[in-house]
Amino acid sequence: MPYFDAASSAPLHPVARQALLAALDEGWADPARLYREGRRARLLLDAAREAAAEAVGCRPDELTFTPSGTRAVHSGISGALAGRRRVGRHLVFSAVEHSSVLHSAAAHEAQGGSVSEVAVDRSGAVSAQAYAEVLREDTALACLQSANHEVGTEQPVAEVAELCRAAGVPLLVDAAQSLGWGPVPGGWSLLAASAHKWGGPSGVGLLAVRKGVRFTVQGPADEREAGRAAGFENLPAIVAAAASLRAVRAEAAAESVRLRALVDRIRARVPQLVPDVEVVGDPVRRLPHLVTFSCLYVDGETLLHELDRAEFSVSSGSSCTSSTLAPSHVLRAMGVLSEGNVRVSLPTGTAGEEVERFLDVLPRVVAEVRERLGAPVSAPPSPAVTASLVVDALGKRCPIPVIELAKVIGEVPRGGTVTVLSDDEAARLDIPAWCAMREQEYVGEEPADRGSAYVVRRLT
Amino acid sequence: MPYFDAASSAPLHPVARQALLAALDEGWADPARLYREGRRARLLLDAAREAAAEAVGCRPDELTFTPSGTRAVHSGISGALAGRRRVGRHLVFSAVEHSSVLHSAAAHEAQGGSVSEVAVDRSGAVSAQAYAEVLREDTALACLQSANHEVGTEQPVAEVAELCRAAGVPLLVDAAQSLGWGPVPGGWSLLAASAHKWGGPSGVGLLAVRKGVRFTVQGPADEREAGRAAGFENLPAIVAAAASLRAVRAEAAAESVRLRALVDRIRARVPQLVPDVEVVGDPVRRLPHLVTFSCLYVDGETLLHELDRAEFSVSSGSSCTSSTLAPSHVLRAMGVLSEGNVRVSLPTGTAGEEVERFLDVLPRVVAEVRERLGAPVSAPPSPAVTASLVVDALGKRCPIPVIELAKVIGEVPRGGTVTVLSDDEAARLDIPAWCAMREQEYVGEEPADRGSAYVVRRLT
Repeated sequence: MPYFDAASSAPLHPVARQALLAALDEGWADPARLYREGRRARLLLDAAREAAAEAVGCRPDELTFTPSGTRAVHSGISGALAGRRRVGRHLVFSAVEHSSVLHSAAAHEAQGGSVSEVAVDRSGAVSAQAYAEVLREDTALACLQSANHEVGTEQPVAEVAELCRAAGVPLLVDAAQSLGWGPVPGGWSLLAASAHKWGGPSGVGLLAVRKGVRFTVQGPADEREAGRAAGFENLPAIVAAAASLRAVRAEAAAESVRLRALVDRIRARVPQLVPDVEVVGDPVRRLPHLVTFSCLYVDGETLLHELDRAEFSVSSGSSCTSSTLAPSHVLRAMGVLSEGNVRVSLPTGTAGEEVERFLDVLPRVVAEVRERLGAPVSAPPSPAVTASLVVDALGKRCPIPVIELAKVIGEVPRGGTVTVLSDDEAARLDIPAWCAMREQEYVGEEPADRGSAYVVRRLT
Repeated sequence: MPYFDAASSAPLHPVARQALLAALDEGWADPARLYREGRRARLLLDAAREAAAEAVGCRPDELTFTPSGTRAVHSGISGALAGRRRVGRHLVFSAVEHSSVLHSAAAHEAQGGSVSEVAVDRSGAVSAQAYAEVLREDTALACLQSANHEVGTEQPVAEVAELCRAAGVPLLVDAAQSLGWGPVPGGWSLLAASAHKWGGPSGVGLLAVRKGVRFTVQGPADEREAGRAAGFENLPAIVAAAASLRAVRAEAAAESVRLRALVDRIRARVPQLVPDVEVVGDPVRRLPHLVTFSCLYVDGETLLHELDRAEFSVSSGSSCTSSTLAPSHVLRAMGVLSEGNVRVSLPTGTAGEEVERFLDVLPRVVAEVRERLGAPVSAPPSPAVTASLVVDALGKRCPIPVIELAKVIGEVPRGGTVTVLSDDEAARLDIPAWCAMREQEYVGEEPADRGSAYVVRRLT
């Protein structure tokens, strides 16, 4: 039963399990107490902090353990913004950050702060130049992920850190997806990460704040973790987090080469095996273990369900999955197809045979879903008969609007238009993406009585 | 090596350990995902919530798992205050609440809110009447602990809840110390608790918010835990917390009777075995496992150190312990002696022989510390020679000022005074407490060039 969703949560590393068990016996007492159980707990906490700080590349007294990566991001952003309130209240971040960053930014804006969202290219990467352009006199903080959690693209963190340094603006790096693979290069000021992403236990995040960075903790005072993370320390989990970070780092060089080759194979084979697929994200500057692709004419939830039946656990940024009705903000910011989206993120130790079996199963599953939805087969369009057509896809959810468009595009002559009426949020992203994939012209969107009218001109 | 500090953190219950181990294997995945590992995690989370809600006495959808008891209190207070901002910004709490409540109140005051602190009597209990008197039109929230964490005194929660209900004010109960012993009675509106206090793992708190209570989550949005606790769920620990709560509850009836008898024995024997001791807290309306006493002429840190050498782990609210220089706010609010303070809180399973051994060791340890400090032996005072005396104890930390006072009180005639000059914060509490214990008259405190002058009149 291959689990291919390490980017959501990695299975517990054996070293984490072992360390957790030991620390349950030795580390349950309050490390602030002076009796022997407390002193023992304090020793464990200090050792864990030293090990984690070494892996992060900071001093132990710069590192705080938080209850999760999300809390590390929330505390890091709110503390850095408050610490530099006199400078200004402008916050910079990329359009493809994790929701914890975007939600922090929204909270900041709701409290009267100003924000600049930096756009990404079609691979999901920001340019350092784009960051340079939005930094202002009153910029209090800039945020940038080390690598994207949905498409794996690495960001130019060192370059952005350098120009932030030159502008006197601290940079917070969300390293949740990459810290297990290696330290974040360059002169970042704050760093956040999450243990369960590298095979550590849940319940532990890291927040590093470099000496000299102005930082004012928000919320009620508390004496734990230098005042930066309120509440009794989750010590056994902290010990396990530090031990497993050290362990995965020791394996990272060899394992990243191995998984990179497996992902390269998926990137190469999926477009050969499955028609009408777009593999997204940077093919080279990327996380070793993660690949994302989208399949035209497929809905993500059905695809995930069928892959689960075939014993593959993957995730999706499609709009029609799980609890969300909007397509992934990452895919939207990249301007790529979101329908039939699949993210494969391989845990360390994934066998090559599992990947081969996935490549074996995927084409059949996609074909079945397409057949069930009545999707068009990739074939020469039928002779053109009318100059323009209107397709009513109101009330229909993705991928139906795109399927309807694809079915009739051949019925208009070259230069003619198809107008798709749709009230599905995903259509706004997926109809232009389909046009780009099919080399048709996306004319634009007009408001309609219900939803929008998307106009497409046939070119080929 | 008897560990008598369960009120700080209880050793992990065997059921918690067992449940944690099982959940490490079954519950590491993201419960929001639809594939089988996610569905399995979701089932575990739902079952844990149902079990914990039953033990709390609320509906599962009223219960949120937080990263700690402190975070439950912080979120509960900030959310309830924000939810009732239109009503007003007045917050009520007792003078002996846990620091997480007091720090939340300080943060609220710093943001322009108003607060009322309800005083306690010498046993540490509030009166319902005192709560009734401070409730106002603009009171947004009242807070009251179920039982005090330092002296064990139970609070009249049901009565206070009833009059809060009548006044239309929600009551938040901090049940951290009592939830393992039984549900909190009465019509509370919000409840906070902490798993590591009942033998569950660290990293898990509970926050219950009754349906109908206005509640507006503060901080950045997050989809986890109904938006009330941001970050990836600490699932294995949550499962262990719920399982152990159920387990300790099953043992609570028998174990509370047994530990109550052991604590009664400590309460009775310590004053017989150790001269000049004050046992504090309500002798009857109290937690079953906790007792606190203070020893005149002893400093808390040395006492704890010597008890640790004798293999007993206890804690202290004395000023001269660990990282704090101020005596416990609880002892101060009660107006009882803080010097030589010892809190004994027995974990479940404590054997009677361990308590007997403690009673055997304690008198010797106290006598040694007193001898080292040159404390007066309880003996008839020497003949009076002068009508008034001034003792300079400037620069000397507790318990020296009280020792100096006790040494010379016999040198003034009945009706004469001793003035103690002291710049030690604990003297303000301990000199009046000594007067009460010794039946001397505490005349009052006057500002001096350095510190204060404490005037005591000899009566006996």
